[in-house]
Amino acid sequence: MASEFTLVRRVEFSETDMAGIVHFSNFFRYMETAEHGFYRSLGFSVIMDNFDPPLGFPRVHAACDYKRPLRFEDTVEIHLLVKEKRSRVLNYAFRFLKLPANGGVAELVATGELTVVCVSHGGEKMEAVPIPSELAAKIEVAPAALLAS
Amino acid sequence: MASEFTLVRRVEFSETDMAGIVHFSNFFRYMETAEHGFYRSLGFSVIMDNFDPPLGFPRVHAACDYKRPLRFEDTVEIHLLVKEKRSRVLNYAFRFLKLPANGGVAELVATGELTVVCVSHGGEKMEAVPIPSELAAKIEVAPAALLAS
Amino acid sequence: MASEFTLVRRVEFSETDMAGIVHFSNFFRYMETAEHGFYRSLGFSVIMDNFDPPLGFPRVHAACDYKRPLRFEDTVEIHLLVKEKRSRVLNYAFRFLKLPANGGVAELVATGELTVVCVSHGGEKMEAVPIPSELAAKIEVAPAALLAS
Amino acid sequence: MASEFTLVRRVEFSETDMAGIVHFSNFFRYMETAEHGFYRSLGFSVIMDNFDPPLGFPRVHAACDYKRPLRFEDTVEIHLLVKEKRSRVLNYAFRFLKLPANGGVAELVATGELTVVCVSHGGEKMEAVPIPSELAAKIEVAPAALLAS
Repeated sequence: MASEFTLVRRVEFSETDMAGIVHFSNFFRYMETAEHGFYRSLGFSVIMDNFDPPLGFPRVHAACDYKRPLRFEDTVEIHLLVKEKRSRVLNYAFRFLKLPANGGVAELVATGELTVVCVSHGGEKMEAVPIPSELAAKIEVAPAALLAS
Repeated sequence: MASEFTLVRRVEFSETDMAGIVHFSNFFRYMETAEHGFYRSLGFSVIMDNFDPPLGFPRVHAACDYKRPLRFEDTVEIHLLVKEKRSRVLNYAFRFLKLPANGGVAELVATGELTVVCVSHGGEKMEAVPIPSELAAKIEVAPAALLAS
Repeated sequence: MASEFTLVRRVEFSETDMAGIVHFSNFFRYMETAEHGFYRSLGFSVIMDNFDPPLGFPRVHAACDYKRPLRFEDTVEIHLLVKEKRSRVLNYAFRFLKLPANGGVAELVATGELTVVCVSHGGEKMEAVPIPSELAAKIEVAPAALLAS
Repeated sequence: MASEFTLVRRVEFSETDMAGIVHFSNFFRYMETAEHGFYRSLGFSVIMDNFDPPLGFPRVHAACDYKRPLRFEDTVEIHLLVKEKRSRVLNYAFRFLKLPANGGVAELVATGELTVVCVSHGGEKMEAVPIPSELAAKIEVAPAALLAS
């Protein structure tokens, strides 16, 4: 069972804006990429086409708090923690840390949150359904101490 | 004095993802575009290079709640309301409405929020400063009834 | 019958990069948006789901030549011209003009090209097929003089 | 001296579009990321702020030919080759290979091209200048056999 996942990436030029920093919308793409890496680490893909009807995980809530800017070629560590697990809903907390170029201490640049719902989509209609038990069995809520830190 | 702004746009192909709907991160780009249109409607640009040192409005908080999917070629109305105005901080509430193709009732697809801080950036250092009085004088908080609806 | 289409848009903040100009990849999104507007102006959508199997227009070639930078809040006119029309293939030429803020002469900022193929996609397999005659009948190649200008 | 660089990345969800494949504009972002990795492999950054006035490498030409679709979670190898090196100009050729999930043969999904010019930008004006000799000394044109393959 797993309750966290860490992704490290380097900021790309196309992710910056004219203010010289990562455009704020890209933090949401980073969160999603970490989420999908988390499923992959459990042996799943977010695209569950082998279910009939196929399942997906649309987002119902997304939020981000920005503390420091992130710049081109910065190395950022995106840390995902499972904050809440319900029958049809998963809630993730994220921390974005800028890793120092020459050793030293990592800086917290942002925190985020994502709430996703498991849905089946036969045709146009989407309907919330329980997360498949094979996947749910592998996910657990992170310890309170970790979530609070 | 103004407390709201409305932007209408048509969903572009490159804004969709493989789930066939607008990628959730694009709602944040839509919010920002409405915010910049709001400043423009007041005779300002978000880029205030004519101040010395130049001013900017980095985001410190962004959030979105998704209710219904938005699809390619849908027409979406983004409605900005000023929710809070402080000396150095502005907080905006957003509503995303899908306009019906053939008359009928607009559907609420999402709500959002953006908090921005006025900063001066001489060199690398950014420092929160009061919003220029010329701009602040034109912005007022929307009536409670509007914000609650 | 139509051989051209013009789209005007204002550069958005999220389309810029840390060099302070529109990121070069966004010119390709602009071209595609003009192409889709062209189909819409003829009464069609690029998504042809009412055919069985459904049709689409994947790109096989895209190119752009950049002459001048485009900046935040610039107004850009994207001009599409049909350069070549074959049974299964359409080739478009594009010109990007920056419209002057206070009258004056528009500046050519870039030229581009897009080649798209009509395909049917039953299942995973895509196969080139003739452009539907209803659509093909409305598209014609632009006069040589226009293409050369 | 170096004449090539290889970057491997996994396709992210936000890079796909409603056709279920990587949006064609993203191949240009992939090319640029490989180009910047190439400079970094030589000990440089594309942002040369330590020169006075600072130098940059805006694109003057970009092109891509698409052969096969690339999908979510595909692993793609982006191969950069130096095709031409002039005093102020570099021209790169790219190959995009989809790496097979379970061994087997890599598939060519696209080829591309990027031409960049070295410019100095003191103030608003940009002017083409020679590539710094420290960087130019490390870059060489790839063997004809490699470029032709």
